[in-house]
Amino acid sequence: MCERGLLIVLSGPSGVGKGTVRKALFSQPDINLHYSISVTTRKPREGEIDGVDYFFKTREEFEQMIRENKLLEWAEYVGNYYGTPIDYVEKTLQEGKDVFLEIEVQGALQVRKAFPEGLFIFLAPPSLNELKNRIVTRGTESEELINDRMKAAKEELEMMDAYDYVVENDEVELACERIKAIVVAEHCKRERVAQRYKKMLEVE
Amino acid sequence: MCERGLLIVLSGPSGVGKGTVRKALFSQPDINLHYSISVTTRKPREGEIDGVDYFFKTREEFEQMIRENKLLEWAEYVGNYYGTPIDYVEKTLQEGKDVFLEIEVQGALQVRKAFPEGLFIFLAPPSLNELKNRIVTRGTESEELINDRMKAAKEELEMMDAYDYVVENDEVELACERIKAIVVAEHCKRERVAQRYKKMLEVE
Repeated sequence: MCERGLLIVLSGPSGVGKGTVRKALFSQPDINLHYSISVTTRKPREGEIDGVDYFFKTREEFEQMIRENKLLEWAEYVGNYYGTPIDYVEKTLQEGKDVFLEIEVQGALQVRKAFPEGLFIFLAPPSLNELKNRIVTRGTESEELINDRMKAAKEELEMMDAYDYVVENDEVELACERIKAIVVAEHCKRERVAQRYKKMLEVE
Repeated sequence: MCERGLLIVLSGPSGVGKGTVRKALFSQPDINLHYSISVTTRKPREGEIDGVDYFFKTREEFEQMIRENKLLEWAEYVGNYYGTPIDYVEKTLQEGKDVFLEIEVQGALQVRKAFPEGLFIFLAPPSLNELKNRIVTRGTESEELINDRMKAAKEELEMMDAYDYVVENDEVELACERIKAIVVAEHCKRERVAQRYKKMLEVE
């Protein structure tokens, strides 16, 4: 009977500041999202707590999770596995709560296949304004620098294709506000509200 | 070169509080929407200013605007004409600014035909929670009252069909926050941002 929650996936090119934005978002008191903790085989860093920052597993445990299809997405970086446990995501969505994932671009594409109804947000560097400035002040910039930015913008444009929204990370606080606005707006989408109405009318 | 603004149409059943929400929205200091002033043939009420509250016209002038297709939508209520001048809307959108209309349901359907790319927000009474409460406390409510609410909810459900978003007017301030969030989210839609990228890359 309970309305299913939204799955919100924040991704984007490496180095764009996904982790910083996610931490700023979850440090806000009024946030109503449930962060899905990743599983990893890398060793805990100082201060990191099992079940809070990550679920720390051995390689054997992780590989068993892969075999048993217990991961929504996973990847290997610098010799360590990272992944998203499917159980938590599925259970939380079923309870009508919104789940938030912050993952790499490759992982986001895997999640899109399993949860096409998810909300995919691409975090972009403030490259457009930067690019504009470089073009405007062309005299003072080398052609090479401008071309580098043009190339990066083209690559970002291609990556965006699999996403529903693009949030520019010009300022962390602004990026957080935009993500929160997207979640509020999605809950107001006519299809979602109409479903609530229909369920209520069926009760009779 | 300038990116076209968004046309935001707020509508909903009469008596739901469209005018109150619109006034509250435009009394906020950070609002970045342009309100389209309506044209009317009714006499100005005390304190109403031509060009601020309405453009006041004679019946002859209004009928000439109808003939010359200068109205985006119009209707007659209690012997007076009300309408939205198309010039202001088109000019402001072209300047890249967002235009906000607050109109009746019939007018919104007319606008939808002319501007299918507009953002149509249905302001709904907090009928679902009300309905729920009445069902839960059934013992203390007459069947007739519950049936009235059920009927109203069914009518609202049908009206919603032509809209993109539904905002419940449970509290005016909350309704305003939701409308603002919808506008922010729409500006983050991938298609819009990708267009900005493409335009920028074409410059070269």
